[in-house]
Amino acid sequence: MKIHRTEQSSHENRGKLAKRRVKLAGMGRMLGGEKIIFGGQTRYRLLKEQSLLDLAEEAANQALLAAGMNIKDIDLIVCAMATPLQAIPCNAALVHERMAKGLDIPAMDINTTCTSFISAVDILSCLVDNNRYERVLILSGDTASAALNPGQRESYELFSDGAAACVLVKATEGEESAVLYGCQKTWSEGAHDTEIRGGCGLMPAFYMEESNQEDYYFDMKGPRVLKLCAKRLPAFVEQCLGNAGVERKDIHKVIPHQASRALDIIMPRLGFPKGSYIDRVKEYGNLVSASVPFVLCEAAEMGLIQRGDLLLLMGTAAGLTVNFLLIRY
Amino acid sequence: MKIHRTEQSSHENRGKLAKRRVKLAGMGRMLGGEKIIFGGQTRYRLLKEQSLLDLAEEAANQALLAAGMNIKDIDLIVCAMATPLQAIPCNAALVHERMAKGLDIPAMDINTTCTSFISAVDILSCLVDNNRYERVLILSGDTASAALNPGQRESYELFSDGAAACVLVKATEGEESAVLYGCQKTWSEGAHDTEIRGGCGLMPAFYMEESNQEDYYFDMKGPRVLKLCAKRLPAFVEQCLGNAGVERKDIHKVIPHQASRALDIIMPRLGFPKGSYIDRVKEYGNLVSASVPFVLCEAAEMGLIQRGDLLLLMGTAAGLTVNFLLIRY
Repeated sequence: MKIHRTEQSSHENRGKLAKRRVKLAGMGRMLGGEKIIFGGQTRYRLLKEQSLLDLAEEAANQALLAAGMNIKDIDLIVCAMATPLQAIPCNAALVHERMAKGLDIPAMDINTTCTSFISAVDILSCLVDNNRYERVLILSGDTASAALNPGQRESYELFSDGAAACVLVKATEGEESAVLYGCQKTWSEGAHDTEIRGGCGLMPAFYMEESNQEDYYFDMKGPRVLKLCAKRLPAFVEQCLGNAGVERKDIHKVIPHQASRALDIIMPRLGFPKGSYIDRVKEYGNLVSASVPFVLCEAAEMGLIQRGDLLLLMGTAAGLTVNFLLIRY
Repeated sequence: MKIHRTEQSSHENRGKLAKRRVKLAGMGRMLGGEKIIFGGQTRYRLLKEQSLLDLAEEAANQALLAAGMNIKDIDLIVCAMATPLQAIPCNAALVHERMAKGLDIPAMDINTTCTSFISAVDILSCLVDNNRYERVLILSGDTASAALNPGQRESYELFSDGAAACVLVKATEGEESAVLYGCQKTWSEGAHDTEIRGGCGLMPAFYMEESNQEDYYFDMKGPRVLKLCAKRLPAFVEQCLGNAGVERKDIHKVIPHQASRALDIIMPRLGFPKGSYIDRVKEYGNLVSASVPFVLCEAAEMGLIQRGDLLLLMGTAAGLTVNFLLIRY
């Protein structure tokens, strides 16, 4: 086990060394059309006539416009979403149908639940660096409202429906934009702390009865998630900072997953005081996979982040998965 | 549009140049425990007490054993499956719970439906080449039977439940194993030719009524799929062979997705005569995402492929997605 630790550390060290010269060339974001207020906290839900695909398409078109590109310039469409729209085909094929029908752009899904966007940027920066792809459109977003349980107030009043997108391209000569270090870990002690048990392969829709309807709703055991995060996150963050050779003061802004209202308790405990990270839980709630790219996009629009800034994208996801990605914006 | 074509071709050419020195170090496979015969064709289904996780775990343990490894040696667990086991968390977190509980190995899903395994090897070979990960466990497999419609005989009698796994590692000095060229395309004209419309975000389990039960079953429009494949595949294969600088006679064996009994019609039309490719549709049917790795694993066990052989992994998937991956085994 000790050998394993050492190997992992040496593995993580490599992340620092392999600077991947990529740039987030454009971003976009879109919320569900219905606005609801729960005790001063604003949440958004899809209108009856809206689908997540409408939001994703709008966010992607904004991202393409901001990048000065057309869908025809893109050579890979990736959905980095937490939940499936259909069991078959993958979400990216359905987005492709909306945006790229008639074109032959490859489409695929990458999924680590709420941190899917961070994982996708981590992975795709390697593919772009490797010249496997050059201009990637990444879409995140989920219809939380499709499975929220009105009886579980904590989660019912937390989540919003929304989407966000970005175009990831190779950085050109003279641009300092890059992915500098990435680390993900999964602790499956938390596999059932945040879940939707029913609707898919293990418990198909056909099995739903009066007695097991709860299994088809989103189910979050908030206190258990918080406890596991409190146990794992501090050492994880220290280890990542150490392996990346970066101190907290070097980081211009942390963009955390907007997990819950506990953000203001957890982030300072991880050594990130108020102001060093972006907290928009009051304004938007937890946008599932769209949280990080949505808040990142808004921060760029508001001038809170500038080209050349060192940013930390960080988050926890059902799994329990944690992700840590340092980028030069 | 012409400019786009030219750019894509130059992009595809790059695949050839970037040899990724990785090796499939070990493989494993497992079928559902119930055997059924339909008109001389053998199919497998999960026993009542089995879950796909049992099959995936068994296949993965075989792969680890064959690679001379323990789960603790693995630094990334990837589920390359076509269908979700739960809407949340991702499949890899559930596999992690079975195999790696207490360890901190990252877990993620990569999904291009039936060609997920090919996409995963393509992507992960770049990540290993980039030193982002070093020893990856890839699991494929689906519970087709969870959504098969007894009223749609063509698909009901085609699919099997099964799983397959492999360990992908960096090739060492002196080993010629590598990923040589990869190309994927998606044509979303086919997005609804193979699908499960209900059960997830766009049509949750709660929406199921007497009148729309069919939407919750797997639905394959066989003739439409075949027509789109016939239109797209020949040019796709020629283009890939050309860009990779490889002729059909250089390929030791083609491992196609075991899409249907039409394999024996389609493959010769693509210039691959009987004997040049592996067809086990009669023995196993369509194992969805497990088809390619299952047949590849069996071929290695049977001595049909040897280290150093040039192999072509190829397949069509819901989307319509096509994948082409040349590897030195």
